[in-house]
Amino acid sequence: MSVRAGIVVTGTEVLSGRVADRNGPWVSERLGELGCETSHIICVGDRPGDLRSALAFLRDAGVDLIFTTGGLGPTADDLTAEIVAGFAGRELVLDEAMERRITEIVAGFARRMRFDPEGLREGTRKQAMVPEGALALDPAGTAPGLVVATDGPVVVVLPGPPRELQAMWPAAVAAPPVAAVLVDAGSYAIATMKMFGVPESTLAKTLREIERTIDLTPLEITTCLRRGAELEIDVRYRESEVELRDSLFLALRERHGRFVYTERGETIDALVAQLLAGRSIAVAESCTGGLLAARLSALPGASGYLKGGVVSYSNEAKIDLLGVPARLIEREGAVSPPVAEAMATAARERFGADLGVGITGIAGPGGGTEEKPVGYVCICVLDGAGNLLARDPQLPGGRDDVRDRSVSVALHMIRRLLIGEDLPV
Amino acid sequence: MSVRAGIVVTGTEVLSGRVADRNGPWVSERLGELGCETSHIICVGDRPGDLRSALAFLRDAGVDLIFTTGGLGPTADDLTAEIVAGFAGRELVLDEAMERRITEIVAGFARRMRFDPEGLREGTRKQAMVPEGALALDPAGTAPGLVVATDGPVVVVLPGPPRELQAMWPAAVAAPPVAAVLVDAGSYAIATMKMFGVPESTLAKTLREIERTIDLTPLEITTCLRRGAELEIDVRYRESEVELRDSLFLALRERHGRFVYTERGETIDALVAQLLAGRSIAVAESCTGGLLAARLSALPGASGYLKGGVVSYSNEAKIDLLGVPARLIEREGAVSPPVAEAMATAARERFGADLGVGITGIAGPGGGTEEKPVGYVCICVLDGAGNLLARDPQLPGGRDDVRDRSVSVALHMIRRLLIGEDLPV
Repeated sequence: MSVRAGIVVTGTEVLSGRVADRNGPWVSERLGELGCETSHIICVGDRPGDLRSALAFLRDAGVDLIFTTGGLGPTADDLTAEIVAGFAGRELVLDEAMERRITEIVAGFARRMRFDPEGLREGTRKQAMVPEGALALDPAGTAPGLVVATDGPVVVVLPGPPRELQAMWPAAVAAPPVAAVLVDAGSYAIATMKMFGVPESTLAKTLREIERTIDLTPLEITTCLRRGAELEIDVRYRESEVELRDSLFLALRERHGRFVYTERGETIDALVAQLLAGRSIAVAESCTGGLLAARLSALPGASGYLKGGVVSYSNEAKIDLLGVPARLIEREGAVSPPVAEAMATAARERFGADLGVGITGIAGPGGGTEEKPVGYVCICVLDGAGNLLARDPQLPGGRDDVRDRSVSVALHMIRRLLIGEDLPV
Repeated sequence: MSVRAGIVVTGTEVLSGRVADRNGPWVSERLGELGCETSHIICVGDRPGDLRSALAFLRDAGVDLIFTTGGLGPTADDLTAEIVAGFAGRELVLDEAMERRITEIVAGFARRMRFDPEGLREGTRKQAMVPEGALALDPAGTAPGLVVATDGPVVVVLPGPPRELQAMWPAAVAAPPVAAVLVDAGSYAIATMKMFGVPESTLAKTLREIERTIDLTPLEITTCLRRGAELEIDVRYRESEVELRDSLFLALRERHGRFVYTERGETIDALVAQLLAGRSIAVAESCTGGLLAARLSALPGASGYLKGGVVSYSNEAKIDLLGVPARLIEREGAVSPPVAEAMATAARERFGADLGVGITGIAGPGGGTEEKPVGYVCICVLDGAGNLLARDPQLPGGRDDVRDRSVSVALHMIRRLLIGEDLPV
């Protein structure tokens, strides 16, 4: 790729590790879609010198675009505009139209919050200072963005709050100096195939095999394992290489087709939601403690298919609320395939749903035995027509991993039941 | 602070934004605890030149330590050891003891996974190549870490998988070349006060007021707003400044004491878990769809207090499973304070718990009305002794924010009920 960008994320909270940066990855993904490669993402604190040196480093690395995020607030330690002006060799000047605009924006809010008017005026004026000749982008919150041409890269200054940054993005990439650079990036497309249950090393071997007969070099292939079992294969390609991408996907399907659950990049959550259209589901959870219900209810419109769930964390709850026979729990243990099935049946019946799911397992760190160690989880998905899928995997990782992966396995089992297939072995 | 470090995170997935980096923030936080300041966190891809230039940049920026993460795997694009060797001006040599060690580690795993033995031998040999004179750190997975002294900074090479990196960390900071640098960092302590319900701008004003009577410059104060309402105040200080820290906390308590929920940095989740010792809780959730139960069950030992929960996503579930009167739902609406209270009561009774919680609200994006817009949430927490807290806030943000913040408000209400207080206004 010919166009390269660097991203500078400012903020002491991010640098100290207190807050996870959401802007760097987001901007990088968007740039990738535009055919522009990110060379570095650099996090710096609020010290002027460190921001200045990061800008100079990226210029020396030869990037065409620099995106900065954060440091546009009204307080004294928000220094990005000033430092970028210095970097570009420009003076900071007051943009009076912008000052009026920000004043309007904050007026109602400031009244409600009873802000001190003098402090407010000062802050507004500071936020309306832009490098001479720069293009100011309309604020999504109160801070305007900036597009500043320099002798080297074009610098795009964006606000720190992710919602504001994302709202401003279309205007930033459409700004003439940015658009002029991006036009050279050419148009890339991304296709994503996802498999459930294929080890990463197996896929690496498969890709090496495929390469013996197909030259894959025009494609940029990235593989990524998520939640321990979902393997994503991202392919970036120029539109002219669409047939090569098809050949790759065909070759992957020939070898691992049974494990592929999408070639269009959707999440398993979205696929399950689509398949549930016109049907309903209810869940009974023990070790996952509500996480499956939470994922099933995360997408808008979930009330169309999710009837509800029971978190039967205690044995009494399994017996009293779900009607799992006490004898069964005694004989098989609360973590056992028959109890998972009884929970799934009860969930379906209690909520009058088409599908029922039961999960019971040992999330740890305590509670494991030699026979049923931490990570042992029993999952059952069934409907009213006699279809039933059951699994009792031994899942790796700590408590959070076991809980999260149990939910993932359950979602893939739900999908398989809905399309009338079993999980492949 | 006198000791500064830079962190270089390698990995195309991280750089492209597909995967969030967990290592940079984690290492930065640990360094902060050791009194060492992070100057930059730089994410680079798998291109050798970009890693090389990042190392040179950090050396030129004058850091004392560089930590790299990732790029230690057995495949050809894992280049970190080689590039760091070049940066330090050393040859890569085979560490035969390490080769035997890795061979032992992977033996069982490789048998189970039916790995190709020749590829395995190659990979193992590659992972056992270390820069001459460097200190190899025992692998937590299969990749050894490295400590490499240079003319400039000491470079510490760590593996990419967070669990492996974290397992190796104690050995990395105890390695003599690293320990020798860190000894100059001096000992810093961190104290964290957290408030619920104080706006960030109010706190900023308070801090300015306090500064008029107390010189706070020896303290490094960072404030951070989480989940929309939890305000964290982190104070880093030398042990000799402990009285100044006490004066600051006293001054903050004088002004906002009723909103402070911890001065020891615990999460609200941990505080609620401690307060629930010897008591039990059950929940009924609508819009949060299991998220409250999931948070209450996230900590080890949750089965000691969490009886269970019902996700009554549909009205039928509220009526049939919880016994909320259909009339009440009809008259007041499913999202109303009386229904939240009926849900809390039912949860308590159905599960035989000491405390009951009910949440019903409009998470959006659909379902809002003028009277009850998206973000309107009714929460009730009660016990069997007649204590009851009820709130119906209008929460900002999208669907995920509304759900997440509802759970946060509920947890703070649970804490207040358990300590016999109401939420302050």
